[in-house]
Amino acid sequence: MTPQNGKTLRIALLGCGSVGSQVARLLREQAGDLAVRIGARLELAGIAVRRPAHPRDAGIDRELLTADAMELATRPDIDIVVEVIGGIEPARSLLLAAMKAGKSVVTANKALLAENGAEVHGAAREHGADLYYEAAVAGAIPLLRPLRESLAGDAVRRVLGIVNGTTNYILDRMDSSGAGFTEALEEAQSMGYAEADPTADVEGFDAAAKAAILAGLAFHTEVTAADVHREGITDVTTADMASARALDCVVKLLAICERSDDGVSVRVHPAMIPRSHPLASVGGAYNAVFVEAESAGRLMFYGAGAGGTPTASAVLGDIVAVARNRLAGTRGPDASTYAALPVMPMGQTLTRYHVSLDVADRPGVLAQVADAFARHGVSIRAARQEARGADAQLIIVSHQARDAALAATVGELESLGVVRAVASVMRVEGEEGPS
Amino acid sequence: MTPQNGKTLRIALLGCGSVGSQVARLLREQAGDLAVRIGARLELAGIAVRRPAHPRDAGIDRELLTADAMELATRPDIDIVVEVIGGIEPARSLLLAAMKAGKSVVTANKALLAENGAEVHGAAREHGADLYYEAAVAGAIPLLRPLRESLAGDAVRRVLGIVNGTTNYILDRMDSSGAGFTEALEEAQSMGYAEADPTADVEGFDAAAKAAILAGLAFHTEVTAADVHREGITDVTTADMASARALDCVVKLLAICERSDDGVSVRVHPAMIPRSHPLASVGGAYNAVFVEAESAGRLMFYGAGAGGTPTASAVLGDIVAVARNRLAGTRGPDASTYAALPVMPMGQTLTRYHVSLDVADRPGVLAQVADAFARHGVSIRAARQEARGADAQLIIVSHQARDAALAATVGELESLGVVRAVASVMRVEGEEGPS
Repeated sequence: MTPQNGKTLRIALLGCGSVGSQVARLLREQAGDLAVRIGARLELAGIAVRRPAHPRDAGIDRELLTADAMELATRPDIDIVVEVIGGIEPARSLLLAAMKAGKSVVTANKALLAENGAEVHGAAREHGADLYYEAAVAGAIPLLRPLRESLAGDAVRRVLGIVNGTTNYILDRMDSSGAGFTEALEEAQSMGYAEADPTADVEGFDAAAKAAILAGLAFHTEVTAADVHREGITDVTTADMASARALDCVVKLLAICERSDDGVSVRVHPAMIPRSHPLASVGGAYNAVFVEAESAGRLMFYGAGAGGTPTASAVLGDIVAVARNRLAGTRGPDASTYAALPVMPMGQTLTRYHVSLDVADRPGVLAQVADAFARHGVSIRAARQEARGADAQLIIVSHQARDAALAATVGELESLGVVRAVASVMRVEGEEGPS
Repeated sequence: MTPQNGKTLRIALLGCGSVGSQVARLLREQAGDLAVRIGARLELAGIAVRRPAHPRDAGIDRELLTADAMELATRPDIDIVVEVIGGIEPARSLLLAAMKAGKSVVTANKALLAENGAEVHGAAREHGADLYYEAAVAGAIPLLRPLRESLAGDAVRRVLGIVNGTTNYILDRMDSSGAGFTEALEEAQSMGYAEADPTADVEGFDAAAKAAILAGLAFHTEVTAADVHREGITDVTTADMASARALDCVVKLLAICERSDDGVSVRVHPAMIPRSHPLASVGGAYNAVFVEAESAGRLMFYGAGAGGTPTASAVLGDIVAVARNRLAGTRGPDASTYAALPVMPMGQTLTRYHVSLDVADRPGVLAQVADAFARHGVSIRAARQEARGADAQLIIVSHQARDAALAATVGELESLGVVRAVASVMRVEGEEGPS
């Protein structure tokens, strides 16, 4: 079946790597179904690549290849520009030029949206262009559309997610095999789950970009990557993993976006969550995101967070949406930032700490440690002491308090004479909500 | 902040029960936010109820109440009709008249969509009306929009879900407390999770309506409730629960929509799934739906499946969407049925059976039982025999086979002399996919 009206929409594909080549394949293989769903034929009219002479999949029509991405992105016959190059430039200039030239834009570029979101959204508004980017966060999982549209009549309170598969794989291995970080990273690299330079993943930059995008959509507020408090997993130790196990918790790298009366807090850091929490069982390279909304309650979205084909599925969903909008002469909802809530610094964010201390095993130690917490106004939820020869291990889990007060407490603990060493400090999530 | 353009869209609410009263409350409480998100003010202009004089929430403006739903649904000043009455009539006539009168429609009415989907969708197409119904399936969980839109460029292979909270609560109790069906049902009724007449839930009618809607959207094919093979949970015994536990499985009432080369199969029945399957840990009154798509892979959506406020959140999301469409002079995508795949009878569907038999404990029994399976072309995946005094319990798990062949095998087992009783028969899901 093909559409009766004989209409065709022409697509420019910028980038033809693992995602782009799958987008090209799906456009080819699903052409018939897509035409019926959209009411017009989609034609792949050009593919911009750095090296047109480079060997490609047999399915890629070499006639379509060009090295001049800017010419392609602004060519008069093009309706929809799909950007899967990644990174800030040249992607930014290409998308701005495409929108100025009246094209609808679909992108998977989380870095660009997290760094230059205001500029790119502003251009979309100014030129009346569609700007869709479901694939930028959590790969194939339909997450941005539910946040933007399904929950448009609700008030999101919290987004809590595992949005980086590489670090989830590494932490999973550390938990299950007892391996240290370096060993687990090497294993992830040999399996192809981590890149040769793993910085973007293990230092939390990738997750922070996604957190910025999620927080912006969830809270109708402009949030950039620089607003996100970011801690990676390179300092997570086998002692931390053991502490988590003792509490029946696991360690996950979480992206956390919260709204309180004071504003929004957006952060990425490793944290302990109870094994009974739905996010705890998200293994390997999968992603999952928990959303708590005032009326809808707790929702969870789960699926493949990366990979060429899953990400291409999300890109195709967006292509269908912008194609339909184009035919109807309309555009999708803008990412609204009307709420313009203040982004709170990490020190003001309410968190809970788990602290494991090596202490002298003698009377009065707990009193001194408890006193340090009290001086910073932090209340203790649980304390447990275990003898270890002449020394002892003292484990404290705090109630919620400002992160700055908790950090200052840990600083003071380090200076106490009875504390031989602060063995492990980690935040705890997934139980008490923010007040 | 209010929209600059001073535009107002007027809403007629049909029904003011547990969902409707929450829709009215959210429209009132979120008025400011909604106006900014939509670009126009939403005004609740009338509420149709059976008994206008009946006591109501303090927040309901009694001036808006009317007993004449038809007059309200077609009144010239109304833009959007929200139907939360439920059931076929008068909801059907009201929605058809509203669409004919040019209104956009939002409904939570699963029964109407599953029974008269073709008629209602046809009217939407004929009159160019928006017809949104996210709240009809799985309450607050954004599920239909991802299926219709996010996965619009993908091919869905399977939908597997827990879509009825009442039966999930009952099966949960049977699993955790060892209670029988009747006892667990009574507990659910006393907790308010099951109605005085629980037929729609425990016989699977509610889940079957939802399965029909999901299958229609997933496979672009017209599917009605009558096409759905339906078995409820009233025959689930403590012996079945024990058999499941022995296999490290749990029993869930599943809605299963599958696409194969032969067509689509849509069914609702209790089944064993492994405890390690993500659906196994969905407890109490929660819903969760697994979607397997060709490119996106496995996705899961989880959240509150019912309740006034969560369902109202989904209704509000739809109201925002149709309001935006109306302002833009466009409408959302139609539910397409272009694929028009045949719906296969249950007998042709590929399933797996778990069968527990009380047999005589003597040589040759397994051979006779295995022979019965072989005669029907069903291959055995696992067999285990346990002595119980003079008798024995023989447990067989089959490989995938046509359901008719499996049913015929069980019929033959019942007639075998060595089989004293067929203690438990249940399908097994969540491992092997359809071929």
